[in-house]
Amino acid sequence: MNDMLHSIEDISYAEYLFDKFYNVGDTGTGGVTRLGYTPAEDEMHGIFAALGAEEGYVTETDEVGNTYLSNLPADDSYYLIGSHLDSVIEGGRYDGVAGVIAGLMILHWLKPSGLHIPVKVVALRCEESSNFGRSTIGSGLITNEIYKHDVGEAIGKDGRTLSEIFAERGYSLQPKRIRGVRQYLELHIEQGKVLEEYGDRIGIVTTVAGPRRFNLHIIGQAEHSGATPMDMRKDALCAAAEIILEIEAIGKEESIYSSVATVGVVQNTPNALNVIPGEVTLGVDMRGIKSDSLDRMETRMKNASKRICQKRGLTFFKEQLSSIPPIDMNQDMQEKLCRVAKDLKIQFRQMSSGAGHDAMSFAAICDAGLVFIPCDKGVSHSKHEFATIESICDGSRVIYEYLKSEYARQQNPSGK
Amino acid sequence: MNDMLHSIEDISYAEYLFDKFYNVGDTGTGGVTRLGYTPAEDEMHGIFAALGAEEGYVTETDEVGNTYLSNLPADDSYYLIGSHLDSVIEGGRYDGVAGVIAGLMILHWLKPSGLHIPVKVVALRCEESSNFGRSTIGSGLITNEIYKHDVGEAIGKDGRTLSEIFAERGYSLQPKRIRGVRQYLELHIEQGKVLEEYGDRIGIVTTVAGPRRFNLHIIGQAEHSGATPMDMRKDALCAAAEIILEIEAIGKEESIYSSVATVGVVQNTPNALNVIPGEVTLGVDMRGIKSDSLDRMETRMKNASKRICQKRGLTFFKEQLSSIPPIDMNQDMQEKLCRVAKDLKIQFRQMSSGAGHDAMSFAAICDAGLVFIPCDKGVSHSKHEFATIESICDGSRVIYEYLKSEYARQQNPSGK
Repeated sequence: MNDMLHSIEDISYAEYLFDKFYNVGDTGTGGVTRLGYTPAEDEMHGIFAALGAEEGYVTETDEVGNTYLSNLPADDSYYLIGSHLDSVIEGGRYDGVAGVIAGLMILHWLKPSGLHIPVKVVALRCEESSNFGRSTIGSGLITNEIYKHDVGEAIGKDGRTLSEIFAERGYSLQPKRIRGVRQYLELHIEQGKVLEEYGDRIGIVTTVAGPRRFNLHIIGQAEHSGATPMDMRKDALCAAAEIILEIEAIGKEESIYSSVATVGVVQNTPNALNVIPGEVTLGVDMRGIKSDSLDRMETRMKNASKRICQKRGLTFFKEQLSSIPPIDMNQDMQEKLCRVAKDLKIQFRQMSSGAGHDAMSFAAICDAGLVFIPCDKGVSHSKHEFATIESICDGSRVIYEYLKSEYARQQNPSGK
Repeated sequence: MNDMLHSIEDISYAEYLFDKFYNVGDTGTGGVTRLGYTPAEDEMHGIFAALGAEEGYVTETDEVGNTYLSNLPADDSYYLIGSHLDSVIEGGRYDGVAGVIAGLMILHWLKPSGLHIPVKVVALRCEESSNFGRSTIGSGLITNEIYKHDVGEAIGKDGRTLSEIFAERGYSLQPKRIRGVRQYLELHIEQGKVLEEYGDRIGIVTTVAGPRRFNLHIIGQAEHSGATPMDMRKDALCAAAEIILEIEAIGKEESIYSSVATVGVVQNTPNALNVIPGEVTLGVDMRGIKSDSLDRMETRMKNASKRICQKRGLTFFKEQLSSIPPIDMNQDMQEKLCRVAKDLKIQFRQMSSGAGHDAMSFAAICDAGLVFIPCDKGVSHSKHEFATIESICDGSRVIYEYLKSEYARQQNPSGK
């Protein structure tokens, strides 16, 4: 499968790194819970720093608790490679961690190489929204992409605000913007099954899809299910069913632009066997890499929902929950990453990312690249999440070879 | 509207009776909670008995706590008129109570009439399923239609079994079957809006629909809503939406037989905005007065659900929760009740009952008749439940005139 791309030593070292993080936040049921800005995440960062100390790397932390390891003395321009070390509740051991391991693999390879490529590996804080209902906090703050007023009052699972937690830890919600990042590179598990279905080993991400989220409120009339004839009903759930299928159809039609549309949440009221549903709220998540496709989906959803509810004599209104524009990864980096994968004979595909990542924060301040590796059956945010050590080595190797070729070109700009 | 059918005295007396029961179980939010076999229901029965004492009626209770008032010394054959005094949680003041008031109105009219029609008015216990998950317990036990083993172990809202509560109260879960009931007559609010929509003042019930209840289990694959392309999904909610619409279509098609089909319950898992629904359970309630229509609906639902899930690569199974056959009201009584309504110039319609009633229990041991009155917008089991005192008087009058004509015919069987 891997054509002996990875040495036994590489596989062993990646396994060693993976095992170091393994037990933190173990829930005893197969998964791990390592919420952002909690002791479990701190423990992960401690292990990360200790791994750096073992190798003699320089350790730094920033004003929001992100941890950095570097192979060379402070440089005013460096490649930043990393991901996050927090997890969702009852999550898996690869989401985020795989990207940090990739960074450590790259430092590990650089060390004996004699190449003076300035690299920092970063473990970012609180990428998952599971603790504060907000995602990419560590990367968002340090890139100044999110601000104190955005997240300070967010309340964590322990009932305290992020402001209170930051004050206690001596962190700042108004950190200086990170400086010197030449390029940001991240390896992440796909969290989908596109790579697996196509048999590809690597995904080079083109765009991180921007989610638009809505609540659709459908208001009918709750009535006795036995005593109300079929033609006298205003059944909110039947209208909701039509809307769910319309949204699926809209998503399918726009799938040529890599868009998706999902109804993930249903709140049915009163949700009793002997009552016709009087009110239904649907939670909708639309993602795409093309704003015009997202616009079309949103408009069609609204029009279809209105039409369906009008036809049935029901009331409809749409509530927007959030809207994040799609974020492109750097085009030039994509092309070069593809070339490297090709040269390494690692079967790859260019693809969009449906899920959000720390790379989105960095794309605003520097060139950013995102490399996916397959995860088993696409399962993530679950104790069943699984990726292979070989895949982590595949992705790490692609990024490493990319860095080498970049470095070589910079040493010899004319290409001679 | 009422063509002066009811005297001011009658309306006043009905209001007086209604007001007596008004405050019991007041929840402070507009509704009442008077669960069966609780102090609130006891209080209702106490008021009922006190109203009987005011008028000098004979009071009896039976082995399960039902209360009876009668106008004549014990007779071995009598007309039984009544309904229940318990309510659902946060229910209304008419469901059940209206039928008990009707009985009291009839006794009130009989008293000065000089007619020696033997009537007992019964306040039945625990008709609603809200306390023990089982309905018509008081009428079901005393008619021996339900048995100790059916309900004894049912657990009430306070955590105790019905057996324990009965033991404490000195009631019996194996009572002697009620004797001497010539006919059972019940007035009840419709709990639907058929009468209101047609502008009818009275409904003469032909059949009480038999509910069949199911859980439909639809099992797909929970996956990341952003990272899973539309054509790689096994979305359980989209399949459920198709099934909901099929069930609506089936109900509409069978509505010519007065059948209805309702999906009242949706359990969506994991019900998160960023996850494609992996598992949905639908709670289905089918009711009809024709067993063959119910059979067709059930078969078509099963086949359609299987087909939809197969097409989408999902797993489906059906779980039957309950199945009660339709119960006919006595044909001869229906005809005579219609004739009486016609003679009284009260616009009426013959109709089925979608909801279950105590009359179902009595239909097994004697001729039973059920008279509906409209309730505002069909709303019931709600604090918004409303019926007019005039409607209660309409229904009471129809039953009273029916009793008079029955009595006259028995005094003069040849009709001369």
